[in-house]
Amino acid sequence: MPDYKLTYFDIRGFGEPIRQLFHLANTPFEDIRLPFQDQLPGKQTPQWLEIKKALPFGRLPVLTVDGLDIPQSAAISRYLAKKFGFAGKTPEEEAWVDAIVDQSKDFAEQFRALIYATKLEFPEAEIQKIREETFIPGRDLWFSILARRLTSNPSGFLVGNGLTWADLSVADNLYTLEGWGLLGKEHGELIEYRKRIYALPELREHIEKRPECSV
Amino acid sequence: MPDYKLTYFDIRGFGEPIRQLFHLANTPFEDIRLPFQDQLPGKQTPQWLEIKKALPFGRLPVLTVDGLDIPQSAAISRYLAKKFGFAGKTPEEEAWVDAIVDQSKDFAEQFRALIYATKLEFPEAEIQKIREETFIPGRDLWFSILARRLTSNPSGFLVGNGLTWADLSVADNLYTLEGWGLLGKEHGELIEYRKRIYALPELREHIEKRPECSV
Ligand SMILES: N[C@@H](CCC(=O)N[C@@H](CS)C(=O)NCC(=O)O)C(=O)O
Ligand SMILES: N[C@@H](CCC(=O)N[C@@H](CS)C(=O)NCC(=O)O)C(=O)O
Repeated sequence: MPDYKLTYFDIRGFGEPIRQLFHLANTPFEDIRLPFQDQLPGKQTPQWLEIKKALPFGRLPVLTVDGLDIPQSAAISRYLAKKFGFAGKTPEEEAWVDAIVDQSKDFAEQFRALIYATKLEFPEAEIQKIREETFIPGRDLWFSILARRLTSNPSGFLVGNGLTWADLSVADNLYTLEGWGLLGKEHGELIEYRKRIYALPELREHIEKRPECSV
Repeated sequence: MPDYKLTYFDIRGFGEPIRQLFHLANTPFEDIRLPFQDQLPGKQTPQWLEIKKALPFGRLPVLTVDGLDIPQSAAISRYLAKKFGFAGKTPEEEAWVDAIVDQSKDFAEQFRALIYATKLEFPEAEIQKIREETFIPGRDLWFSILARRLTSNPSGFLVGNGLTWADLSVADNLYTLEGWGLLGKEHGELIEYRKRIYALPELREHIEKRPECSV
């Protein structure tokens, strides 16, 4: 078995679906979690800047497989998902898994605009503008896409008849929205879906033991 | 051979690397190009809104393969690249191709901020701020990543010893930067690289004949 090392920060963020893939495949990996606050803009510590210099693209996560560094979270997840059997069962399923993940990233960009404005304490009127013009339309489109897929796909998963890494990535994103109070009871089917993924026996213990984190 | 139909706008944008993959593989496809101006924010025509409603994620490109719609440009490119042999030769090469494409998208987000501010005629001071704080640092990182890869990889391609869809996507992005005057002579090695990709015999005719377009 290859030697796997995942380097990321002590948040869920871009690293969590990768960690979950290892748990699903029951495959050991070294789970290195650097302090997230060490890289905050304007507050970067010398330790972090030293580590950053040596990374392929200057950012994390990075997966190291027998000494080879692989950057970019979706590239890492896809790589492991293919190895472990969670990438889709046909070329068309693989393409749909990829499409859902990229759509989720398009929405995440809009969600991040709101998180950013909130955390950096923009004036209330500006936060409100971002919420109404960027976040809400993005979220409504995204939820309607998810709801449509879950209705049309009787398996209860987003693609095909089994779990894929698109489910991991989407469930993590929904969990974050719930934590921010942005996924309400009117979307009960999405909350149910997220709970169903989180209840998978291979994930449950990991999820119960992981440190709580809003992002 | 499957029946392929690509629906996009009459720009290079997210569609061009997909078109190039078909040309490289010498595979016929229906190249539907809708008027880009029909979807401009605030100026959407009824025809476009009608088409939009029927799309899986409400946006283009969409590839239709024997009647199955696949959305999201990177998902489409990866799907075709795997079929046509341009996705990388090992799982690790595939992961690096994916990582470079995603890094290019991270940079494209910063580039788009500048294009957007320029096209929408933001106040000059604001454009200048975006250029200096967002675009330039992003571009410098991106160019240094590309230069490092091209130096360390003797094949002249970004990954492994042959052409991959990462080269198509990156060359297209460099071409756009050149057109905007944002890729200067101090990066001669990147201009040479872009020209080398564009000179591939399977691409040359397509590139000579395609309509000129700044994006
Ligand atoms: N598109 C990248 C984004 C990675 C990213 O933004 N990483 C952040 C942490 S979440 C980082 O490394 N920040 C530290 C820095 O930029 O110095 C991915 O998906 O891996
Ligand atoms: N992440 C998507 C982005 C697609 C996208 O932004 N498409 C634009 C044109 S370049 C579009 O369809 N705009 C029309 C609209 O949103 O109504 C992809 O890579 O395919």
